[in-house]
Amino acid sequence: MIDLYTFTTPNGRKASVMLEEVELPYNIHKIDITKNEQFTPEFLAINPNSKIPAIIDQDTGMTIFESGAILIYLAEKTGKFLPTDQKSRFEVIEWLMFQMASVGPMLGQLNHFKKFAPEQIPYAIERYQKETLRIYSVLDKQLSDKEFICNEYSIADMATFPWIAIYEFQGLTLDNHPNLKRWVETVQQRPAVQRGMAVP
Amino acid sequence: MIDLYTFTTPNGRKASVMLEEVELPYNIHKIDITKNEQFTPEFLAINPNSKIPAIIDQDTGMTIFESGAILIYLAEKTGKFLPTDQKSRFEVIEWLMFQMASVGPMLGQLNHFKKFAPEQIPYAIERYQKETLRIYSVLDKQLSDKEFICNEYSIADMATFPWIAIYEFQGLTLDNHPNLKRWVETVQQRPAVQRGMAVP
Repeated sequence: MIDLYTFTTPNGRKASVMLEEVELPYNIHKIDITKNEQFTPEFLAINPNSKIPAIIDQDTGMTIFESGAILIYLAEKTGKFLPTDQKSRFEVIEWLMFQMASVGPMLGQLNHFKKFAPEQIPYAIERYQKETLRIYSVLDKQLSDKEFICNEYSIADMATFPWIAIYEFQGLTLDNHPNLKRWVETVQQRPAVQRGMAVP
Repeated sequence: MIDLYTFTTPNGRKASVMLEEVELPYNIHKIDITKNEQFTPEFLAINPNSKIPAIIDQDTGMTIFESGAILIYLAEKTGKFLPTDQKSRFEVIEWLMFQMASVGPMLGQLNHFKKFAPEQIPYAIERYQKETLRIYSVLDKQLSDKEFICNEYSIADMATFPWIAIYEFQGLTLDNHPNLKRWVETVQQRPAVQRGMAVP
């Protein structure tokens, strides 16, 4: 059994989508970050960086924080969605790292400046919108000759999907990135993705 | 032989420090991002995300982009700086992911708004300075009972060091984070780190 500490954010959904895909049983612990529940001593003992998601694997006693680490951990635990041959494995790790270092942080900053900041700062909104569209283009090109980001559906897709799926919330369209649009439609048809995106 | 494509940035230095630590021979290819050399067709064929660092391992023919993926690849290739027992290994992967998702992107935004943006935007500078100091505190606490970020010197230290080492450039001090300050001093005394930080 896995304990999942999560909330209704793209980073949280990466973990719940993966848990649904690998069909591991899990308990959902909702950490309401709008109520600062990520700063309780109990949660800081799980993740000293005070971010969701985090998991505790009751089978091994291991606690894992950072969504990218959780995805690799669950992939290795189940032998699914992270190929074992070296070349394919590192393609997935590269695109997972691209998601961790660019897709999440930059689209997250666009969320902040466009939706949540107390003042509208045109320079910052333009900076992160331009970077988001650049990221869309990188992914669109990568998806021009494949169904998924790497050769088969993987944790790179699961990490990226929840961030691209919020394009309407971010006031954007995928119409200029047809391969990315087609990929979003393909991934969101997966029943496990639909279940994971509804957690918590 | 490894071909390293890099520039004088913290992300580039992660790779050169690791190559020096593991003592693999490598050729340095300087990609001058101030001259947009990352956008040449030759470099885009190596990294479709147009960022340094990237490597080509002539032994395997593999091209790896994203500094976090490069660190894991070189650690696995050499059997160094990423423990193999599952618990220790995932501690390193967690802190590597924390570096990739928070340390680099957030300190990078502080660089932009404090040093490079054409206008000074107090809200943005304060946002990223506050987040940088929060990250310093997370690391300072983690280092309160250890010499290195995890139980032994690892790719988590190598990923994090080049970003913390620029604190003076960022107009910050480590005086309020004594464990982090002591760690910076320890890591920067390593000859391989000194060699790697001088590349290219």
